[in-house]
Amino acid sequence: MIAVLKNGTSDNQIENLSSWLRSQGLDVHISKGSTHTVIGLIGDTTKIDEELLLGLDMIETVKRISEPFKSANRKFHPDDTIINVGNTSVGGKDFALIAGPCSVESEEQVMEIAREVKAAGATMLRGGAFKPRTSPYDFQGLKADGIELLLLAKRETGLPIVTEIMNANHLPLFEDVDVIQVGARNMQNFELLKELGHTNKPILLKRGLANTLKELLMSAEYIMAGGNENVILCERGIRTFETYTRNTLDISAVPMLRELTHLPIVVDPSHATGVAKLVKPMALAAAAAGADGLMIEVHNDPAHALCDGPQSLTPAAFSDVTKAVKRVLAAVEEA
Amino acid sequence: MIAVLKNGTSDNQIENLSSWLRSQGLDVHISKGSTHTVIGLIGDTTKIDEELLLGLDMIETVKRISEPFKSANRKFHPDDTIINVGNTSVGGKDFALIAGPCSVESEEQVMEIAREVKAAGATMLRGGAFKPRTSPYDFQGLKADGIELLLLAKRETGLPIVTEIMNANHLPLFEDVDVIQVGARNMQNFELLKELGHTNKPILLKRGLANTLKELLMSAEYIMAGGNENVILCERGIRTFETYTRNTLDISAVPMLRELTHLPIVVDPSHATGVAKLVKPMALAAAAAGADGLMIEVHNDPAHALCDGPQSLTPAAFSDVTKAVKRVLAAVEEA
Amino acid sequence: MIAVLKNGTSDNQIENLSSWLRSQGLDVHISKGSTHTVIGLIGDTTKIDEELLLGLDMIETVKRISEPFKSANRKFHPDDTIINVGNTSVGGKDFALIAGPCSVESEEQVMEIAREVKAAGATMLRGGAFKPRTSPYDFQGLKADGIELLLLAKRETGLPIVTEIMNANHLPLFEDVDVIQVGARNMQNFELLKELGHTNKPILLKRGLANTLKELLMSAEYIMAGGNENVILCERGIRTFETYTRNTLDISAVPMLRELTHLPIVVDPSHATGVAKLVKPMALAAAAAGADGLMIEVHNDPAHALCDGPQSLTPAAFSDVTKAVKRVLAAVEEA
Amino acid sequence: MIAVLKNGTSDNQIENLSSWLRSQGLDVHISKGSTHTVIGLIGDTTKIDEELLLGLDMIETVKRISEPFKSANRKFHPDDTIINVGNTSVGGKDFALIAGPCSVESEEQVMEIAREVKAAGATMLRGGAFKPRTSPYDFQGLKADGIELLLLAKRETGLPIVTEIMNANHLPLFEDVDVIQVGARNMQNFELLKELGHTNKPILLKRGLANTLKELLMSAEYIMAGGNENVILCERGIRTFETYTRNTLDISAVPMLRELTHLPIVVDPSHATGVAKLVKPMALAAAAAGADGLMIEVHNDPAHALCDGPQSLTPAAFSDVTKAVKRVLAAVEEA
Repeated sequence: MIAVLKNGTSDNQIENLSSWLRSQGLDVHISKGSTHTVIGLIGDTTKIDEELLLGLDMIETVKRISEPFKSANRKFHPDDTIINVGNTSVGGKDFALIAGPCSVESEEQVMEIAREVKAAGATMLRGGAFKPRTSPYDFQGLKADGIELLLLAKRETGLPIVTEIMNANHLPLFEDVDVIQVGARNMQNFELLKELGHTNKPILLKRGLANTLKELLMSAEYIMAGGNENVILCERGIRTFETYTRNTLDISAVPMLRELTHLPIVVDPSHATGVAKLVKPMALAAAAAGADGLMIEVHNDPAHALCDGPQSLTPAAFSDVTKAVKRVLAAVEEA
Repeated sequence: MIAVLKNGTSDNQIENLSSWLRSQGLDVHISKGSTHTVIGLIGDTTKIDEELLLGLDMIETVKRISEPFKSANRKFHPDDTIINVGNTSVGGKDFALIAGPCSVESEEQVMEIAREVKAAGATMLRGGAFKPRTSPYDFQGLKADGIELLLLAKRETGLPIVTEIMNANHLPLFEDVDVIQVGARNMQNFELLKELGHTNKPILLKRGLANTLKELLMSAEYIMAGGNENVILCERGIRTFETYTRNTLDISAVPMLRELTHLPIVVDPSHATGVAKLVKPMALAAAAAGADGLMIEVHNDPAHALCDGPQSLTPAAFSDVTKAVKRVLAAVEEA
Repeated sequence: MIAVLKNGTSDNQIENLSSWLRSQGLDVHISKGSTHTVIGLIGDTTKIDEELLLGLDMIETVKRISEPFKSANRKFHPDDTIINVGNTSVGGKDFALIAGPCSVESEEQVMEIAREVKAAGATMLRGGAFKPRTSPYDFQGLKADGIELLLLAKRETGLPIVTEIMNANHLPLFEDVDVIQVGARNMQNFELLKELGHTNKPILLKRGLANTLKELLMSAEYIMAGGNENVILCERGIRTFETYTRNTLDISAVPMLRELTHLPIVVDPSHATGVAKLVKPMALAAAAAGADGLMIEVHNDPAHALCDGPQSLTPAAFSDVTKAVKRVLAAVEEA
Repeated sequence: MIAVLKNGTSDNQIENLSSWLRSQGLDVHISKGSTHTVIGLIGDTTKIDEELLLGLDMIETVKRISEPFKSANRKFHPDDTIINVGNTSVGGKDFALIAGPCSVESEEQVMEIAREVKAAGATMLRGGAFKPRTSPYDFQGLKADGIELLLLAKRETGLPIVTEIMNANHLPLFEDVDVIQVGARNMQNFELLKELGHTNKPILLKRGLANTLKELLMSAEYIMAGGNENVILCERGIRTFETYTRNTLDISAVPMLRELTHLPIVVDPSHATGVAKLVKPMALAAAAAGADGLMIEVHNDPAHALCDGPQSLTPAAFSDVTKAVKRVLAAVEEA
């Protein structure tokens, strides 16, 4: 970390600042130029609050050289993290195919979809029991009953299940859930992240709608700082000015995160685009760019249209996607 | 609400959809054109889930005419809401001046600032006890002790206090807090909003970093739907591509919200700009645009620079702002 | 197009508006509901100015059902457009590989890169002669001399050349250029687009930094409305809040544009990411998502570092990318 | 400017880079730390291309301390620039009130509005003759005839006129125009800016839809570098995710630009908000924040609704705005 001091900062002020920085366990390296003095900080600067430094009158600018995340940082953990989930895993050689309905609606629905996505190659079942909705008047999910239905499907198909948590007080309901999802709107719900850091469950952490990759990694860091290193990152589209798609899927997040972190990265092309026709090409793009898995919405009954989100695929269409994804993965691997 | 059906939708499909919509308590008005059929929905469409309709194969596009928020809507509640807070109020004739430190740090600090901002005209004291920080390694606030210090300052100065909540489980600690703040990162923490809807405390709800005014009002609606109508909206800057300022204060949110809702609107120029020199001009702009109040960071000791955020004013500078704000308010009122 | 009238609009006002709309060659279909009257407009509504309608006091809201672009619209031109460029083509079965240096710097540089990218499979040579730079103090390109050097490389290698125009007055210099590029900052330089519409040159039109796909297609429409239908669309990254990458490459633009338009679509992963390591994964993602081609920056001399943008590949790395792209294209085709 | 070198950069590489930097007229100050070497550059670094430095393999990061703009920089020109326009001026004590129709439509229209806005206190007349429109099918303005009508209004009322240029080839038509406007979409049309730099006309430069203040100042720098220092900056709203307003007026741009530059700053609340009811509160906010002037759309005939943009005021409403603005200016001045 480098801090540039304002012109006119006195030696006394520089000495006071240096003492304080040294007291934080850092080596301080001062270099006086003709117009500016530059202070280099060496050591574990993750503990230094950048805004606090910027708040000092004497400081013109601050520049981090090393990243503020540590547990998630590939520099300190060069090998890819592989997270075991039931009889499957995320990261490394295995490619995760997480599929299922947007919302759990009924036993019949979830059982049928579970069987069909398993047959089509899914490695995990997803389904919303607690649903974060912009409007308090919209359907909020089946809640505890929804989780029960997912567990029923897990018992029958053997597929591990992924479902979203919105409130740490609900954790007892998630005891048999395999992967706990944190939704985009809760990516910076730090209290929830801290609680999840005290569990040992795999956490699928979705990127917030307008959050940077650094912020995503800092949120992963909240979970990891509590002792839970089983974090799966999920790119699910960011808010941009484009209106034909619901959000803009940031595929470049995949190879960029690959550089920055050892954590596995999955991509959700369904929510990101909000358009069923785009799910296949974007799933292929994610696979080509090196994702560790995909999370795809599948519905079972096109006639039962009211439950059919504009971004959902039929099981047959999902099966077609999985086959094409595998061909692309093989083509990339050959390289 | 208007739904445009796709070319080729059968009469049978139209009839099925209409029955379902009527079963939701709506009047359905069908108008067949040469290429498209348009369905007009009349009644309380706040209960209709727009995405669910869009998910239907037969639907080309959906357009809301009335707003999806109800309790917060000025159309159903034309008079301005005035929220009483201790011996003062927000909304209506009174102009709220909420001032205090970013973080509560010590008894000495909070007592001194409280006395000074009161002398300068503040109507409430703000201070952070629970601090949402992007990094788990940054200072997270004095927590319960911080609230105790704020209550001490309240007892001495009589100023009502405003402080942020991050976890509904902490509510017992907020029993004597006058206004509970929901921070930008928790604007769509719907579980927290629901819990606050079951209290009768005034809630200061900050707009999220990349959220629209409609989303802000839908979050207010979550609180109000639970029975707590004491919601104060707070514009605190949105994320844009500009880098000289930390965020971009959306002053137009003030008159726009004034049209849409009866709830009071306060503006936080300190966090929005992140630059102390901009606090005064932006405070004046907010007052000129019709805000019901301001929330301003004030620190007490410029020498004790490490606690001095780049956006904080000294008490003297705050006093200068309050005087100028009052002149501008008088000038606007005369109009 | 549908216009919803405000409550209380008189029959007389409705009749006046309808007459005016009919005089614009449209069929007008009026449907009066209990609270709102809806006017449906049938015919060529591309000529109707949406903002002008919204400006009318009596109008509450306007919703286009059909798109405002016509020549570029796939609905009126279902087959993919294939644009012939020298002995190659863009669109259809051929996959365009456009490669070359960011800026043309010297004869030696451009000749060597041209030979090397041709050997690696490039189908066209790109190179900047006129360079749009944010700062007037930055290098502005070799201009006319740069074009001469590109033409020299074309004569030797047979590769068609692509280079950017910034001023319609420079058109005479572009007589032997095969594809004229319009840069992101000029996407809405309508005067330039109109002039290019009067040529018969293929135009590679880059999406603006914060522009929507609809705006991109409207800019293509400016060129096509002048008679030049040879427009190649180029996705090159949009501005978002992410800072690890220079821009965010919107891969979903590829399949989305495929639905909306018959024009070919190429992707520029070099400028979009600004990071050399991301060029290969993003090139593969673009190919997997169905792009018609790629535009990639290649430099020749890693030792000559000052001319080496952070997003450039060496010829060897480019050759590796082309091979992997072809494998991915084959894998997708098999589907 | 500070450049941080990558760990492992050889002394030889450092020496080569330093020589090159010295050859650009800079003093080079090298400071070797235990992990990183930092190079400080002292002198006129505006000529150093930041991207070019970042492109060097050996460089980890680059940080500008001084701004890349020079002629526009307040540091080198502490006094406010005052630009004389006819018998009035922009900057300094005078407050500019620029009013008129969005588009010039007829002699009757422009003459009547000119008389009425003059009576209401306008100091200049604005009106669009060349209109940049997203669609080639929308009205493109009366062009040369529109300028003639503005000149007629100028002769009768004495008001200086402001109108937009879209093509440097049209400059001869602007000979008697007092202020030439560059629209938001042309803010980075560098060829146009360069040509305007060779005139001596005052240029009103509008901020682009998604451009930063630094980019705005760099565009001003393009004009000033050509010798024309008469640049008026105009904040007119930026693109955000908000949809109730057309754009988001960045009022904080006013005091921020005031710090950065000596050029005068006017605000256009009409285009920014796109909502007539918001024009007055936002005009007052701009005045309170320290703007040097306002640019407001005024139409003359509310019955002639088709020409009445949703953001236009009547002359009477404009008169009310000017009075309120003057009261606010007086209140701020008193401070």
